[in-house]
Amino acid sequence: MRLGRVIGNIVSTIKHERLKGIKLLIVEPVGPDGAKNAAPIIVADYLDSGMGSLIYWIEDGATICKWMELRSIPLRGSIVGQVDKVDFKDPEQILKG
Amino acid sequence: MRLGRVIGNIVSTIKHERLKGIKLLIVEPVGPDGAKNAAPIIVADYLDSGMGSLIYWIEDGATICKWMELRSIPLRGSIVGQVDKVDFKDPEQILKG
Amino acid sequence: MRLGRVIGNIVSTIKHERLKGIKLLIVEPVGPDGAKNAAPIIVADYLDSGMGSLIYWIEDGATICKWMELRSIPLRGSIVGQVDKVDFKDPEQILKG
Amino acid sequence: MRLGRVIGNIVSTIKHERLKGIKLLIVEPVGPDGAKNAAPIIVADYLDSGMGSLIYWIEDGATICKWMELRSIPLRGSIVGQVDKVDFKDPEQILKG
Amino acid sequence: MRLGRVIGNIVSTIKHERLKGIKLLIVEPVGPDGAKNAAPIIVADYLDSGMGSLIYWIEDGATICKWMELRSIPLRGSIVGQVDKVDFKDPEQILKG
Repeated sequence: MRLGRVIGNIVSTIKHERLKGIKLLIVEPVGPDGAKNAAPIIVADYLDSGMGSLIYWIEDGATICKWMELRSIPLRGSIVGQVDKVDFKDPEQILKG
Repeated sequence: MRLGRVIGNIVSTIKHERLKGIKLLIVEPVGPDGAKNAAPIIVADYLDSGMGSLIYWIEDGATICKWMELRSIPLRGSIVGQVDKVDFKDPEQILKG
Repeated sequence: MRLGRVIGNIVSTIKHERLKGIKLLIVEPVGPDGAKNAAPIIVADYLDSGMGSLIYWIEDGATICKWMELRSIPLRGSIVGQVDKVDFKDPEQILKG
Repeated sequence: MRLGRVIGNIVSTIKHERLKGIKLLIVEPVGPDGAKNAAPIIVADYLDSGMGSLIYWIEDGATICKWMELRSIPLRGSIVGQVDKVDFKDPEQILKG
Repeated sequence: MRLGRVIGNIVSTIKHERLKGIKLLIVEPVGPDGAKNAAPIIVADYLDSGMGSLIYWIEDGATICKWMELRSIPLRGSIVGQVDKVDFKDPEQILKG
């Protein structure tokens, strides 16, 4: 799983029919300090996550289909939680003790 | 899933027999601003996407085979939707509120 | 599998219900010399790993679900061991013999 | 799937017994313009691809095993087609129309 | 699959019980010219590979579990062969003919 921030959404008419009704958001991967660390991706959202939310998502098609107990749909990424707080230490500080 | 732009197609005679008849496009991964963000890949297309289309695709062999309700074919990527509009904010603007 | 160091944890109220009760840590991928080599990720932990621990984890949803002999949960990464000692040689020294 | 060029092969005596008899090639990932875009990988070949061939391959163990209708073998990548011609446009030209 | 060189091993007491007895090596991914091309990873070894060996490995949990005909174990990478010889040409030489 990875941390990310919701930065947008996709409007799409022509698509695979099993994607109809599924909200697709654009998420920018970020580190625990909130800094961007990879290219944006597109994920499904079932948690009503708003613009700017800090979330974590999984990228694993088979797993998503199973836990949704739905018929198989062409999805690879999905938000699975929203973040209230990130507790972290700078790794160099951890090593200094 | 990722955003991408169709930039070409592949002509191929010698191939696995289950790939026959499947249209293979070259897609360049792009960000929500349309800027390229990774190396081009090859994906199947069942949505009649044209040159230059903004699309999103999945990369997940098992999932593709299941939703197509076909026999297993050696495919890993497939376009699953075409993009009408991308709504996004620059992450720095989101953080400033 | 990859080596990593525990650098933090996630507090999250709104999440997929099957993630409730699962401890989620932030791990920074490191090399055998302890130097960071990729962006931090979020993994589950069942080994009571503490802040700063050197661990190794897998990233594979289907495999995790199977070995936990649990119902399918939306997890992709999990710590599977803690490291007591890393024995390694600089690759250039190995080649010199 | 990705585009690549065959740049070599592997000679290997000690290996998993189910890999015996399978031809393993070294492939350099390339873009539609033929320029290298990632580190070389090792893939199986069942299409008699020669040195220098432009090919495309999949990387997906489960999918390969299924389409080969063989017992499971420890393979993750396989060439699935040879390229006769690549038609592509420079993305900037597409956007200019 | 990828080429790599064995550069170390992991000593680990606290770990998932199904990993007990499995030898875990540190492998540095290399190109056909022996030059490092990615961050080190941790893989299982069943071929008695020594320090400095040139090997190839797969990274695919489901596939590993199946070919081992074992109960599911939390493994994602495993060495599947040792390299006697790598035959390769510089891609630029191939293109010049």
